[in-house]
Amino acid sequence: MTSTRAQGRHALFPADPHAREIAEELYEHVREAPILSPHGHVDPAILAEDTPFSDPTELFITRDHYVTRLLHAGGAPLDALGLAPDQPAEPREVWRTLAANWHRFVGTASGYWIAQELESLFGVEDELSPETADRTYDRVASGLAEAAFRPRALFDRFGIEVLATTDDPLDDLARHDLLASDPSFRGRVLPTFRPDAYLDPETPGFAERVERLLAATAQETTFAGYLTALEARRAYFLQHGAVSADHGVYEPFTTDLDPARAQELFAAALGGSLDDAEARLFRGHMLFQMARMSAADGLVMTIHPGVRRNHHRPTFARFGADTGHDIPVRTEYTENLRPLLEAFGTAPGFHMVLFAVDEAVYSREVAPLAGFYPSVFIGAPWWFLDAPDAILRWRSAVTETAGFYRSSGFIDDTRAFLSIPARHDTARRVDAAFLSRLVTEGRVTLPTARRIARDLVDAIPREVFKL
Amino acid sequence: MTSTRAQGRHALFPADPHAREIAEELYEHVREAPILSPHGHVDPAILAEDTPFSDPTELFITRDHYVTRLLHAGGAPLDALGLAPDQPAEPREVWRTLAANWHRFVGTASGYWIAQELESLFGVEDELSPETADRTYDRVASGLAEAAFRPRALFDRFGIEVLATTDDPLDDLARHDLLASDPSFRGRVLPTFRPDAYLDPETPGFAERVERLLAATAQETTFAGYLTALEARRAYFLQHGAVSADHGVYEPFTTDLDPARAQELFAAALGGSLDDAEARLFRGHMLFQMARMSAADGLVMTIHPGVRRNHHRPTFARFGADTGHDIPVRTEYTENLRPLLEAFGTAPGFHMVLFAVDEAVYSREVAPLAGFYPSVFIGAPWWFLDAPDAILRWRSAVTETAGFYRSSGFIDDTRAFLSIPARHDTARRVDAAFLSRLVTEGRVTLPTARRIARDLVDAIPREVFKL
Amino acid sequence: MTSTRAQGRHALFPADPHAREIAEELYEHVREAPILSPHGHVDPAILAEDTPFSDPTELFITRDHYVTRLLHAGGAPLDALGLAPDQPAEPREVWRTLAANWHRFVGTASGYWIAQELESLFGVEDELSPETADRTYDRVASGLAEAAFRPRALFDRFGIEVLATTDDPLDDLARHDLLASDPSFRGRVLPTFRPDAYLDPETPGFAERVERLLAATAQETTFAGYLTALEARRAYFLQHGAVSADHGVYEPFTTDLDPARAQELFAAALGGSLDDAEARLFRGHMLFQMARMSAADGLVMTIHPGVRRNHHRPTFARFGADTGHDIPVRTEYTENLRPLLEAFGTAPGFHMVLFAVDEAVYSREVAPLAGFYPSVFIGAPWWFLDAPDAILRWRSAVTETAGFYRSSGFIDDTRAFLSIPARHDTARRVDAAFLSRLVTEGRVTLPTARRIARDLVDAIPREVFKL
Repeated sequence: MTSTRAQGRHALFPADPHAREIAEELYEHVREAPILSPHGHVDPAILAEDTPFSDPTELFITRDHYVTRLLHAGGAPLDALGLAPDQPAEPREVWRTLAANWHRFVGTASGYWIAQELESLFGVEDELSPETADRTYDRVASGLAEAAFRPRALFDRFGIEVLATTDDPLDDLARHDLLASDPSFRGRVLPTFRPDAYLDPETPGFAERVERLLAATAQETTFAGYLTALEARRAYFLQHGAVSADHGVYEPFTTDLDPARAQELFAAALGGSLDDAEARLFRGHMLFQMARMSAADGLVMTIHPGVRRNHHRPTFARFGADTGHDIPVRTEYTENLRPLLEAFGTAPGFHMVLFAVDEAVYSREVAPLAGFYPSVFIGAPWWFLDAPDAILRWRSAVTETAGFYRSSGFIDDTRAFLSIPARHDTARRVDAAFLSRLVTEGRVTLPTARRIARDLVDAIPREVFKL
Repeated sequence: MTSTRAQGRHALFPADPHAREIAEELYEHVREAPILSPHGHVDPAILAEDTPFSDPTELFITRDHYVTRLLHAGGAPLDALGLAPDQPAEPREVWRTLAANWHRFVGTASGYWIAQELESLFGVEDELSPETADRTYDRVASGLAEAAFRPRALFDRFGIEVLATTDDPLDDLARHDLLASDPSFRGRVLPTFRPDAYLDPETPGFAERVERLLAATAQETTFAGYLTALEARRAYFLQHGAVSADHGVYEPFTTDLDPARAQELFAAALGGSLDDAEARLFRGHMLFQMARMSAADGLVMTIHPGVRRNHHRPTFARFGADTGHDIPVRTEYTENLRPLLEAFGTAPGFHMVLFAVDEAVYSREVAPLAGFYPSVFIGAPWWFLDAPDAILRWRSAVTETAGFYRSSGFIDDTRAFLSIPARHDTARRVDAAFLSRLVTEGRVTLPTARRIARDLVDAIPREVFKL
Repeated sequence: MTSTRAQGRHALFPADPHAREIAEELYEHVREAPILSPHGHVDPAILAEDTPFSDPTELFITRDHYVTRLLHAGGAPLDALGLAPDQPAEPREVWRTLAANWHRFVGTASGYWIAQELESLFGVEDELSPETADRTYDRVASGLAEAAFRPRALFDRFGIEVLATTDDPLDDLARHDLLASDPSFRGRVLPTFRPDAYLDPETPGFAERVERLLAATAQETTFAGYLTALEARRAYFLQHGAVSADHGVYEPFTTDLDPARAQELFAAALGGSLDDAEARLFRGHMLFQMARMSAADGLVMTIHPGVRRNHHRPTFARFGADTGHDIPVRTEYTENLRPLLEAFGTAPGFHMVLFAVDEAVYSREVAPLAGFYPSVFIGAPWWFLDAPDAILRWRSAVTETAGFYRSSGFIDDTRAFLSIPARHDTARRVDAAFLSRLVTEGRVTLPTARRIARDLVDAIPREVFKL
């Protein structure tokens, strides 16, 4: 990982000098370790084509809905930020909007990452403000024009060993193949099977999408054909390097249905005649089927539940998805996952990583499940919770029940390519801070803390994600 | 704000000497800033009439159900504390009960405030105990006899600039007018529109109350007339200085109904024939209507949801409301508020402050909502959570998602007039402590922390509450 | 309590030197105080018979499902750990499995206790590892052969004054009588009335069990007879020293039913014809009845709700209950307990201790309830939450609302006899750490902190559990 001085050598370490010293030692032990990024949303095209990033605004603002949402909350309409498909905004003006609203980002994870990126990658040490806006913009823009800031060069500079993308089941994965076969590119860019839109009958276009899936795999329009089609595409992903299948669901409800009932619901789903309860049953059975397939083919099953997507329909209608108004909801794992876990929870080689945006479940449900089921791993803090204090709360909540070795290792889950090292660096620093506290409290010896710090960025993600 | 030495110059600051020094500097920056109290329950009569406080017991105990509830839990019947309307208690005896039970208050927010008030206002440095009870009582009683302890003198001494009360929609606001027109009184005492009892058909006396409302505004007994009547009273409040409308609901459920259905439910509500589900629909629609009116007339909408009022009916029957057994329940915001936010969430000038007594919603629902909707602000910790550790947990939970500038600024929400400076001082100290941690962790620069500390007690509440 | 040097003199104390010094002083004040253990699962036979412990593996691993569950999660099948009734495992091999997986326990509560026990009782200072496995096993095994390691000797050495067991309502309590009448044994070993299996009609064997209960107490098969039978067995327990009745329920739902309806459900329960909703009503009414009986006979009512027992049915079928897959669920207290509390919440002498495995309820429901009802006490952190960080979170969550004197005092809730001193020592250290923070923050004076530290291990549990 690139050296990041960012907000100081002691950033995110505890205040107490002795604890800080231990944290620093542990962090130094992992600072330069290669980045394993087993889940994220970087577009593989930017690496396959290695085209230069266009401008600072697209890179830091427009593409990052963590950033645009907070500008929107502060009063900037999304079209003024360049999010309207039909109405471009002047990049420098949008950048000035960010600078004028920089105080809104202070204390947030996004603010911390952006400051770290500006400093470590572009040497910008001034805080963003109306006064520094243009100067910073120009500095970043001139940096981006250099060869050293082309995506592949950054990939190397960031020390990324593995980067997983997130892909449609019918994607031909040509860009992944291109990268894998290019001798000049040494990283591993792995596809991830993400079938949500093919599993939820309430997604717009569900029937057409399933028909395309069946056609692509030469299957009949039956539930059995549908399962075979999904299995075929999973196999295709596996052949092209995939290690996991990702599932973004409203709730992690699972249920096993007999084949006749499943066929009935499948037919009704294609016909658009399911009621709400039936649609829920169908989704719950398909999540169960995904576990069955993962237990069989070995793709690690990751579940990202508990988000009401596109909360503000008028914004969705005009600006589309991923525009900052996906809002978490209360989530239940213990009862919802019971059918799945009774069937596959102890299946050899089955791995399931449970992410959460509901902190109440950390100590109550996720850690106890991972503390018994060999298949269950505690997902690293996700989305809004992927931030220094939140990571620390998560470690505190899950470790006493399940230890360090049932956690998944950090995932950055980002579409903001430049933020990858800052995010991993944050996780490494916070884990060092957490471990240093356990050392000063006499709960872990220093040599063991060193081993754990290392395993958290290396052995653990390799095992959990079968890298 | 009056100088409060209370539990020491470093009270509530972190233990680490360096972090403590930063906290102290930040705190000194805001210690004397005027108090803005945009939500509370002080009776405007005490200021309008400026009558001396009667005795220490009424002031510190009887009027403060934070205090009586814990004495009750410790075994003191409420009638022995003077809460029975028909059975007065000897004030000095009640004070002795508090002193004998003082250990029960150690570590609580109430205990902290009372100790601070006794010291900063009355110079009492001894801890309360059976030995110090009478001495302290006498000291406070003799203080209260002085002119400097009359309500208006304290208002000045506390440095209060704005104090909002909470008022019935049919209140004539004469006491507010009197204060506003009195050239010798310089503070602003603002009414707040609190229509709960006119919106919930399950409140005892609902129909009669609505009839009074309609009569007072010369409206017909139709749903349209009812809305017009509410609008008219809101306008009256606005003319008399109100900046907000407050809503205490069991759940923040909202729904839009067509006018015919609303009329139907309204008629049934007056006739007392609504079933539970219909009553819920009616309440949900009225909360929706309140948002519509706030978007139109500009009154800031504050929502205080999630409390089962009067949990112990036998106590309610004998002692009335606000006697210490209002108990929080799990609360849901994301789905419940969706209809309201789809309709008004991006309406220009609409402000909605979401309070919570359910800590699980801070990072999961409230901060993400405020991180997108320009109308949504994160209410400061409320009720049981308005205490040093809880405030710190709240800042930690919401700031990484939404920053400092989506929070509401502190509200004291108190009917205990004397506790106002202690409560604001607590919030200022805790915010200084929180910011000092971010500074020592390299996440905020010191100059920016200074600006934020100041904005939290000044620019932010002024903007959120349109002061 | 035996002196435990364990992970260092400063274990679990804060890092800041000044706060640490205060914590140490407070801890020294209670370090040797007698252990009061008012709730746990130690088998009274081991004390009655005083037979030597068989081997290190049974003592530290096989009997402790906190330990076996995490080995299972790490890939060790339960039969390889010796849990299959029909398939013994070689103790030394199982011990080696623990040693090889020791890294999995680092940071967990179980890992902390085991390390403390190995050091303080057996003088083992090396961390467990494949290299130290055999050496440690031999050391423990040779220790166990000594008279000083017989259960009664340890009971004395641990400084246990009171130890409550958990017993079936039809138990004859002969072992408790034997201990009580033995002049050479000075401790108090008290039975606890645990009627779950007699109250939940969905427990396998419910009808037969109730018939046995009725036969044993010479009651007719009516609801009235059933209540009388339960009262009779409670009286028997009281006569044999019991101070409490314990209730492990899925949810703390309570309801009062009229006698005719109760009789109807009782008959259907015995006939096995209750549907799910009726079974829930019956359970809810029986929890209500248990409160009525506690209010009458004085047994302290403890409620341990919110756990889905035996989550993985295949494991339950093969290995039985208490094998590591009891998983918490979201729990609701405010509404569920309202009928019970309206009826008995202010009944003189009624004590009810509310435990929780759902941290969200601490500040939201349990502390507010205990802050009003004289009968309600806040149960100490339980099960997965009985660990240093979790205890600290709990104190932080409940104290500001309800103070220290509404909490129950620590319970160890353990079946691992050797872990009792380590668990109580952890609680004492963590409480000292918590108090030391309040002292350094100017919220509690040092003399008051000393009194509280002492009361937490002495006056408070004695009062709450009527010891």
